[in-house]
Amino acid sequence: MSITHNFSSVTSLNVFFEEVRQSVEKCLDDLIPRSNLAPERLHEAIRWSAMAGGKRIRPALLIATGRVFGAPPGSMIRTAAAVEMIHTYSLIHDDLPAMDDDDLRRGRATCHKQFDEATAILAGDVLQTLAFQAIAGDENLTPATRVRLISILAEASGTPAGMVAGQQLDLDAEGHDISGPELEQIHRLKTGALITAAAKAGAVIGGASDAELEAIEQYAAKLGLLFQITDDLLDVTQETGVLGKTAGKDVAAEKATYPGRYGIEAASSKAASVCDDARADLLPVDRDTQMLTAIAEFVLHRTR
Amino acid sequence: MSITHNFSSVTSLNVFFEEVRQSVEKCLDDLIPRSNLAPERLHEAIRWSAMAGGKRIRPALLIATGRVFGAPPGSMIRTAAAVEMIHTYSLIHDDLPAMDDDDLRRGRATCHKQFDEATAILAGDVLQTLAFQAIAGDENLTPATRVRLISILAEASGTPAGMVAGQQLDLDAEGHDISGPELEQIHRLKTGALITAAAKAGAVIGGASDAELEAIEQYAAKLGLLFQITDDLLDVTQETGVLGKTAGKDVAAEKATYPGRYGIEAASSKAASVCDDARADLLPVDRDTQMLTAIAEFVLHRTR
Repeated sequence: MSITHNFSSVTSLNVFFEEVRQSVEKCLDDLIPRSNLAPERLHEAIRWSAMAGGKRIRPALLIATGRVFGAPPGSMIRTAAAVEMIHTYSLIHDDLPAMDDDDLRRGRATCHKQFDEATAILAGDVLQTLAFQAIAGDENLTPATRVRLISILAEASGTPAGMVAGQQLDLDAEGHDISGPELEQIHRLKTGALITAAAKAGAVIGGASDAELEAIEQYAAKLGLLFQITDDLLDVTQETGVLGKTAGKDVAAEKATYPGRYGIEAASSKAASVCDDARADLLPVDRDTQMLTAIAEFVLHRTR
Repeated sequence: MSITHNFSSVTSLNVFFEEVRQSVEKCLDDLIPRSNLAPERLHEAIRWSAMAGGKRIRPALLIATGRVFGAPPGSMIRTAAAVEMIHTYSLIHDDLPAMDDDDLRRGRATCHKQFDEATAILAGDVLQTLAFQAIAGDENLTPATRVRLISILAEASGTPAGMVAGQQLDLDAEGHDISGPELEQIHRLKTGALITAAAKAGAVIGGASDAELEAIEQYAAKLGLLFQITDDLLDVTQETGVLGKTAGKDVAAEKATYPGRYGIEAASSKAASVCDDARADLLPVDRDTQMLTAIAEFVLHRTR
């Protein structure tokens, strides 16, 4: 439990992230139809968004959590790719003119700017389909595990307890004064639910006990909150070129954010204390959770 | 095999359709979060589109096919509702300004007209999620059957062999001259794939043999084609008030259609011969397939 943000843990975490990135991108490449297959434009659009890099933090969290409970690597990769497909579909739709109307994502043009709105809507739609299809067809897992994972992912990305519910609440809140608890609820759903599902999926594949699953959920919920606070902070403190997406857009859209509500300094302190809480949540798990604490530290200190 | 479009079959088919409508709408009502639950606007929007009536032809086909193979009613209803949710999500997104830009659907304002574009995008997104979630959590079916049904539905609604692929090809074809086979391919994917999946799902739940499944697939593929041809015909021959959606819009959008390509008379003849083919496809199935032939007759003669 005594891991701090020192050189060796950063190095091994970076190696791990790079391994995850490579294996997830290979899996995405296998799961998404080729761009030379009809309809070419649709498949190009999906690949434009899904293969654009990105931090792949959700797959990394899933795989790191699975490793804690001894899940074999091959049993997790499709579910990890599925979570990333859900995340990417949400980004494509979030960036649409009717939603956040953004031109830049992961350092390149958003899907509807590069292609067109109709294609971007369909690309997002079908990435969601491909995600559930990937898990349903994963022969490395028993059917019972597959339906459990699909249920976890659907609940976390849907409504009333998931990502889309959070997006709707976020839209509804634009330009309105909302309370602190309302702000946390939006982020718990919009960002936290899918991050929690990723960790939970890894734990389920690894065969974690109910008590362990509960601890992992607590940890991941804090991690999701931490991720959102640092996301909000980066939006106001970093440049567009570093982020790979438009900086300063939360303020422009009158979005509810932590620095907007509490100021940069208080939001930074909150981030540090949420990171401590996340680490504490792992205490009941009698396994080697070093990688999970390192991920929380990484999210706290990230610069993009 | 000698069912014709006579009074008694029409009556019993109408009774069956009404039973299906009631049970599917009850199931949809159970599966979709209440409108008084946050985010209210999202849940109202989903219900606006999903509970707006509609013919519920896909659930009826699923349940009729399942009955052919002796599936218990309770084992089919969630999957039938899931297919209808996928269909409804596709209608909501199809009607968006960036797609077909339509104001009227199922006799009322389209989702984005009644609410707003962002809410309509999210309502469609989450109906897809709820569909897969409904099947994954259906305890009337074994996990193995559930993953098989999810795979069938995902393949049929996705890409390269499903509905979204067909929608993209349809968009890409607007304003272009396309060949007869290209037109059939668009409709096979855009409309046929989900109709075929509905029949196939019923057969799978009923435990049909591989040979029976093959025959049902052939039948349903013809039924899907028949459905599209009559849809195209109704678009040019019926009034908006009867259809419950904007009539004449295919011509306005320079959509590829059967009457557009072959004329109304030849398209009507083609519909009749496709209906005969659908009936013939059922010959190898040594069960009571009367209801399935009656459904094909119904689609041939439908007036909305």
